[in-house]
Amino acid sequence: MAEKLQNRINRTIAVDSLNKGIGYLNRALVPGEVSKLGWNLLREDLSLPAAVLYEDRIAHNLSWMKRFVEAYGVRLAPHGKTTMAPRLFEMQLESGAWGITLATAQQTQVAYAYGVRRVLMANELIGKENMAIIGRLIEDPSFEFYCLVDSGAQAHQLGEYFSAVGRRLNVLVELGVSGGRAGVRDEDQLRSVIAALECRSNSIVLAGVEIYEGVLDDESSIRTLLERAVAVTRTLIDEKLLQRTPAILSGAGSAWYDVVAEVFSAAGFGDSVEIVLRPGCYVTHDVGAYREAQAKILERNPIARKMNAGLVPALQVWAYVQSIPEEDRAILGMGKRDAAFDAGLPVPAQHFRPGDTGPRPAPAHWTVTKMMDQHAYMRITAGDDLRVGDMIAFDISHPCLTFDKWRLLPILNVDYQVVDLVQTFF
Amino acid sequence: MAEKLQNRINRTIAVDSLNKGIGYLNRALVPGEVSKLGWNLLREDLSLPAAVLYEDRIAHNLSWMKRFVEAYGVRLAPHGKTTMAPRLFEMQLESGAWGITLATAQQTQVAYAYGVRRVLMANELIGKENMAIIGRLIEDPSFEFYCLVDSGAQAHQLGEYFSAVGRRLNVLVELGVSGGRAGVRDEDQLRSVIAALECRSNSIVLAGVEIYEGVLDDESSIRTLLERAVAVTRTLIDEKLLQRTPAILSGAGSAWYDVVAEVFSAAGFGDSVEIVLRPGCYVTHDVGAYREAQAKILERNPIARKMNAGLVPALQVWAYVQSIPEEDRAILGMGKRDAAFDAGLPVPAQHFRPGDTGPRPAPAHWTVTKMMDQHAYMRITAGDDLRVGDMIAFDISHPCLTFDKWRLLPILNVDYQVVDLVQTFF
Repeated sequence: MAEKLQNRINRTIAVDSLNKGIGYLNRALVPGEVSKLGWNLLREDLSLPAAVLYEDRIAHNLSWMKRFVEAYGVRLAPHGKTTMAPRLFEMQLESGAWGITLATAQQTQVAYAYGVRRVLMANELIGKENMAIIGRLIEDPSFEFYCLVDSGAQAHQLGEYFSAVGRRLNVLVELGVSGGRAGVRDEDQLRSVIAALECRSNSIVLAGVEIYEGVLDDESSIRTLLERAVAVTRTLIDEKLLQRTPAILSGAGSAWYDVVAEVFSAAGFGDSVEIVLRPGCYVTHDVGAYREAQAKILERNPIARKMNAGLVPALQVWAYVQSIPEEDRAILGMGKRDAAFDAGLPVPAQHFRPGDTGPRPAPAHWTVTKMMDQHAYMRITAGDDLRVGDMIAFDISHPCLTFDKWRLLPILNVDYQVVDLVQTFF
Repeated sequence: MAEKLQNRINRTIAVDSLNKGIGYLNRALVPGEVSKLGWNLLREDLSLPAAVLYEDRIAHNLSWMKRFVEAYGVRLAPHGKTTMAPRLFEMQLESGAWGITLATAQQTQVAYAYGVRRVLMANELIGKENMAIIGRLIEDPSFEFYCLVDSGAQAHQLGEYFSAVGRRLNVLVELGVSGGRAGVRDEDQLRSVIAALECRSNSIVLAGVEIYEGVLDDESSIRTLLERAVAVTRTLIDEKLLQRTPAILSGAGSAWYDVVAEVFSAAGFGDSVEIVLRPGCYVTHDVGAYREAQAKILERNPIARKMNAGLVPALQVWAYVQSIPEEDRAILGMGKRDAAFDAGLPVPAQHFRPGDTGPRPAPAHWTVTKMMDQHAYMRITAGDDLRVGDMIAFDISHPCLTFDKWRLLPILNVDYQVVDLVQTFF
């Protein structure tokens, strides 16, 4: 599979010189050629700002999550919307992932184009052209696809489209909670969806049950939702309403996957149910919302606690100091166009002066106080050893909204040498 | 110029089927071919969510701003970082713009690649590879380029690089304010920059003065800064320190361009100074921060007030209702991945049910209460005529951070027919 994917990638992507965060190119390249260019971040071969991934840390995170899901005997379908990077999907699949989770028809189309052959679209499929995209993809019998349904109205719309094109669509019924996002709230809504699906059974196949616990924020409510999902799955199996063997039971974003793994695996379904977890942020992790979430996971989960080191942040944005107009204020060439700002501002992590042998940790008192579209304000202290032209590496919070600011992200080895290039498709 | 630009665009862009917000393609196209496909938004030919531009409203805004700057006899260099769309740059230049403003070397490279031949990079140029990008571009004698300088340290770094490659770089000195972004704060800093520039005069050409008043938020402080910029320009001209005739005096983001036009043109420089304004958001406008700013402009500026209609919002994001899980709550397939959320959430503007003849205005009580990465929560009232599969058009606040979520934006005519496609380069 890996070789097949790499072939597709080499065949179809061309990196041109108009992208931010890369080095000079006098012709279009495929990413596989990039390592031969000898680009090094510390030699200033990249145009900053640049978002970079660290090879060793990505490998660590992939391996950590592989061992975590194996310990629970559950499947992993990492949420691909985080990165929308087929090169990372490929690494996740090589690291044992069962499939890739996505949020939209377009995202599914991207994954398919780069060789992914099992997708859980953890979202309702709505609209003529979106159904058409999926309809064309599932013409390929090697492509396994699931999406969500949470209302009779939606089930009928899907049924009409897929029976007209003569295809059968696999769906999971989504359970939701009051005040939450999509998903059936109660038994009445569930039965209304089931009835619509039975009526549309020539074109819609009910394969399992899905929840997204991340709309809740306390463990007790989450456990209640998970127990409900287990109970509904059991009932639907008993009533022979699930037409996949094993049935699918899926949950888990990046903050509560441990509790989901624990509750779902404790249900004792054995071979009759495939439990599929969908965290997305673990691959790069962060130093904000997900670091906090991971700290709680390490506190409460005995299996995670026994594993080495936890997840590590593998994504940084590097930028230049472009002005120090006041003695306690530096202006950086990085802004809302370059890094997420919705779950905490970027955190100065490393400081490098071109010509030095290597970066030093940034002093803890350097703090980003504000971001504009293309700039960040960093508070420093008068007399700090910081100069215009110095480079700062920022750790970030919320990798999803950082990835979608970049079309290309270099992967660096421990010597800051560019060894690969990750292309995104947002 | 227009023809030349269109040739470049047709030669170099290919639209493939992996992008969100467009219709089905079975082969790569150039944008010029898109109008022949007959895509219509209301016939659901586009995969939603989709960000769209309205041809007539863009034309209105271009014409409005053209007449505004002509009334003051000032130049327009629209900030291109807003859209990063060469097709819109082309329209702006056709509509009389003097040049395009940009924020980074990479952005400049994109504009150059699509035929823009005068760029004001309203930012300090920092770093080896960024200088190399600009160094290569200014090898073309037909390319006129200006960037900013605000410290002796930076002036020396530029001087070293550009004298080594044997090129002369045009710069404007940036004036800034205490507590603001970059820019010299006082006379001492100004003189230190001037001294460094004189020392580097073989490779650096001081062509004028620049300010960005948008870091301030009250008119009185802004007028003080503008008067200071006028005074500094006058002094530098008197001291024969500006080596361009006419000298350049530039300011103005999208909220205060009227005051900048008024103060700078009232200075009476005549032919000795080219006044260059740099608003960016006017081309699409919005219904949030910039609508408010524009309302104030119409209040305080007699010329704007005399002109018809003001600016109109020309950018919307369309999305499907994907679930109505509670009677007062709809879930939309549009999230932080699709629209700006940093200056107000999107506002439901139109409601369309596939099969109807046309959209109706969305009821005023429909309100977006929260956005997640791929979803929005919309508050409705029990009994509202809203169904799963309905389409909602959202007005947005902060066009810059909406554009950068999209690689392709269809342009629609008044019948919602796709007549063109705008590609972005973030």
